[in-house]
Amino acid sequence: MSTTLSAVDYARQNHPRFLDELKALLRIPSVSTLPEHMGDCRHAAEVLAAELERIGMEHVRLIETSGHPLVYADWLHAAGKPTALCYGHYDVQPPDPLEEWLSPPFEPQERDGNLYARGAVDDKGQMYMHVKALESLLAADGALPLNVRVLLEGEEEVGGEGIADYVASRPPDLKADFALISDTEMFAPGLPTLCVGLRGMIYTELEVRGARTDLHSGMYGGAAPNPFLALAQILAHLEDEHGHILIPGFYDGIVPPSPEELEAWRSLPFDEEQYRIAEVGARALVGEAGYSVLERTWARPTLDVHGMPGGFTGAGAKTVIPAKAVAKVSMRLVPGMTPAKAFAQYKSYVEKIAPAGVDVEVRLVHSGDPCLIPVDNPYIRAATRALREVWGKETVFIRSGGSIPIVGDFARHLGLPSVMMGFGLPDDNLHAPNEKFHLKNFELGIESIVRFLEEAAG
Amino acid sequence: MSTTLSAVDYARQNHPRFLDELKALLRIPSVSTLPEHMGDCRHAAEVLAAELERIGMEHVRLIETSGHPLVYADWLHAAGKPTALCYGHYDVQPPDPLEEWLSPPFEPQERDGNLYARGAVDDKGQMYMHVKALESLLAADGALPLNVRVLLEGEEEVGGEGIADYVASRPPDLKADFALISDTEMFAPGLPTLCVGLRGMIYTELEVRGARTDLHSGMYGGAAPNPFLALAQILAHLEDEHGHILIPGFYDGIVPPSPEELEAWRSLPFDEEQYRIAEVGARALVGEAGYSVLERTWARPTLDVHGMPGGFTGAGAKTVIPAKAVAKVSMRLVPGMTPAKAFAQYKSYVEKIAPAGVDVEVRLVHSGDPCLIPVDNPYIRAATRALREVWGKETVFIRSGGSIPIVGDFARHLGLPSVMMGFGLPDDNLHAPNEKFHLKNFELGIESIVRFLEEAAG
Repeated sequence: MSTTLSAVDYARQNHPRFLDELKALLRIPSVSTLPEHMGDCRHAAEVLAAELERIGMEHVRLIETSGHPLVYADWLHAAGKPTALCYGHYDVQPPDPLEEWLSPPFEPQERDGNLYARGAVDDKGQMYMHVKALESLLAADGALPLNVRVLLEGEEEVGGEGIADYVASRPPDLKADFALISDTEMFAPGLPTLCVGLRGMIYTELEVRGARTDLHSGMYGGAAPNPFLALAQILAHLEDEHGHILIPGFYDGIVPPSPEELEAWRSLPFDEEQYRIAEVGARALVGEAGYSVLERTWARPTLDVHGMPGGFTGAGAKTVIPAKAVAKVSMRLVPGMTPAKAFAQYKSYVEKIAPAGVDVEVRLVHSGDPCLIPVDNPYIRAATRALREVWGKETVFIRSGGSIPIVGDFARHLGLPSVMMGFGLPDDNLHAPNEKFHLKNFELGIESIVRFLEEAAG
Repeated sequence: MSTTLSAVDYARQNHPRFLDELKALLRIPSVSTLPEHMGDCRHAAEVLAAELERIGMEHVRLIETSGHPLVYADWLHAAGKPTALCYGHYDVQPPDPLEEWLSPPFEPQERDGNLYARGAVDDKGQMYMHVKALESLLAADGALPLNVRVLLEGEEEVGGEGIADYVASRPPDLKADFALISDTEMFAPGLPTLCVGLRGMIYTELEVRGARTDLHSGMYGGAAPNPFLALAQILAHLEDEHGHILIPGFYDGIVPPSPEELEAWRSLPFDEEQYRIAEVGARALVGEAGYSVLERTWARPTLDVHGMPGGFTGAGAKTVIPAKAVAKVSMRLVPGMTPAKAFAQYKSYVEKIAPAGVDVEVRLVHSGDPCLIPVDNPYIRAATRALREVWGKETVFIRSGGSIPIVGDFARHLGLPSVMMGFGLPDDNLHAPNEKFHLKNFELGIESIVRFLEEAAG
């Protein structure tokens, strides 16, 4: 056990430096969806590649894609031991609305035991725990307890097309026994959690065109179609007042959670009123009637509108009937649904209900399959042992309402089960202003990964 | 009649210079609604004041308001003659979407007998016709045929609060017998037109707030309210599929056009299919069932959405449930309606139909009264004589679906009838990309105003 202690001790002793390195990484505004940050995305990839090289990983290289590059590294000297594929992403969501951040999104700041920055938890902070766990093991022991491949991407927030293509090509470089992903959260502070299910999604743009050009609403109001009013008619008919999606056939084939899984969810520490007030902060919760909050967010399809570009959005008034308007609409999918079928149903329904006078175009921006992880494998069992040792508690199994399409790709193309061991917290403001990572979770997360890799070595 | 010929001759001889001066004015991006153009608005006012001084007008000065300044000038040496109040506005609409302009909006370009620029017709070009008509009269005759006051504003496109306050104070400087306004259009090319009715309006912002902060649509989709979906529900219930506005009491008290006016409208040269294809360019026209296009756009209230700021509007995908979203909604009002009553009805209805889970705020941005102009006065008769002489045709009387709130203010506070003698054309792209002014209309417009001021002198 001296070996074990020594890697964890190394991590503890070097924690201030680990944190400084993470802050440097968070200062790189690697926003994958914005073309002006293309250079920043590459810079983040290069910084990570250099660090993997420095800590002793081998065959480090950038793999070019149609978008931002992948980062690859490996260490394969543990003969007879299994191989882990450590996945993470270095890209982040756009930071807007900027005015709501208490400290600038790309100037990391520690406050009240948390580190605030865009990407702090999603996913730079969590991904960097892998790098620092590998460093601690290599530095303390001169070797890893098992074989490790690292694969990082820069397009997770924009659909992950590059890594999907690469994984689908089944390259020998990705031969492994399981994947380790830290991009999810703990159900509650201090409660070790493995995520075993993810929703899929389709992200779409619904474009409505009326007149040939923008028109004056005084001159043409009452004759020219208004694309926003047409969009409102369409959107209002996508869901009824009970949160039920009205697209014909949309719910067909859904596989519900087992009675055992539902029973386990009911025993999780969850207070709906506390969640409404502290986490959501809305007057009331919404969603599909007849299902609990956890069922609605983990195991039922949902529909959201993210923005409606077009027309005049500045301060003040402009009396224009815009020629066109767009709604960015996504739907989350659950086991039993496929993106292709859901998109086809949605498109056909929208085209049917579009009001007169306008042309409608429905575009698919990106999509991902829903997935369920089998829990009866030695890597999940190794993870629960490691988490029990570091956190002193039994692991709970949850799902996530979010989408990590790569999990499905790893299973389908490489036959890998994923261990989704995340250390985010429910109030970490993912994709929102004031994103944060609890500093204690960064520290214990690294220790958990060190212990997990040792346990997974058998 | 030698005097008359001489002022018109002066205008003809100096036309190339007049056009160059207009182009210089159009190069000033005096967009009143955008704070970053505040200096440009003042610059436009100063340029006009200097030009009024140069041509021989007196008491030229800027009048400060809560926003952009007014420009005042007068010439009051025609003892015993009536006094004209020449009104125009030097501010313009925002130029976006920029990518749809064939030449940059603030770099005037002549193409096919038209001058293209933001403000070319609305209203810099039309307002400048007044200045050049006054110059021609003063230069050719050494005097004006009647007394003239000039009052220009820089906030017409943002509600005209400054001029409204000034007019409401009934200053001695505005004592006059009639107002001359060139901010409307000719019904068809070459057809002299006086506008005798305007719609009023209320311009509002409808803000919906759901969660306290932006949330991840994977994590919270199915629990957190979506402000855009709530807005869609509200907007979809403002109007039914027959274009009928559903706000209770909204149509109460409307004064319809007289049978004679409707009969005159039916004899105007108007081809609905031609209008749909050439002017609107939409798949179909929309609007309230049971009314003709001219009735719908001139004499019926309508509702439009101009933009829906909030959430993510960039290229690509961001999976956010925005904390809030806004719809910029305006309604055009007709005689018998008042902005105060219409806004109160709208606000109360929206608050009633807002879905659960969200807070709704309804804000009035600006408003203006509808108005009808009496046609049985000597100034309207003088206008028809002048137009017949210059254009060789009888004048038609139309209404405009747009709103020029100052016309109501002139009537209410100063007792002035307005002569709305406009020279825009239906395809001039007001408030839209590629706004233009027909060069022949700029030329004959100046001659028409010279002749009108002479006729109005009696």
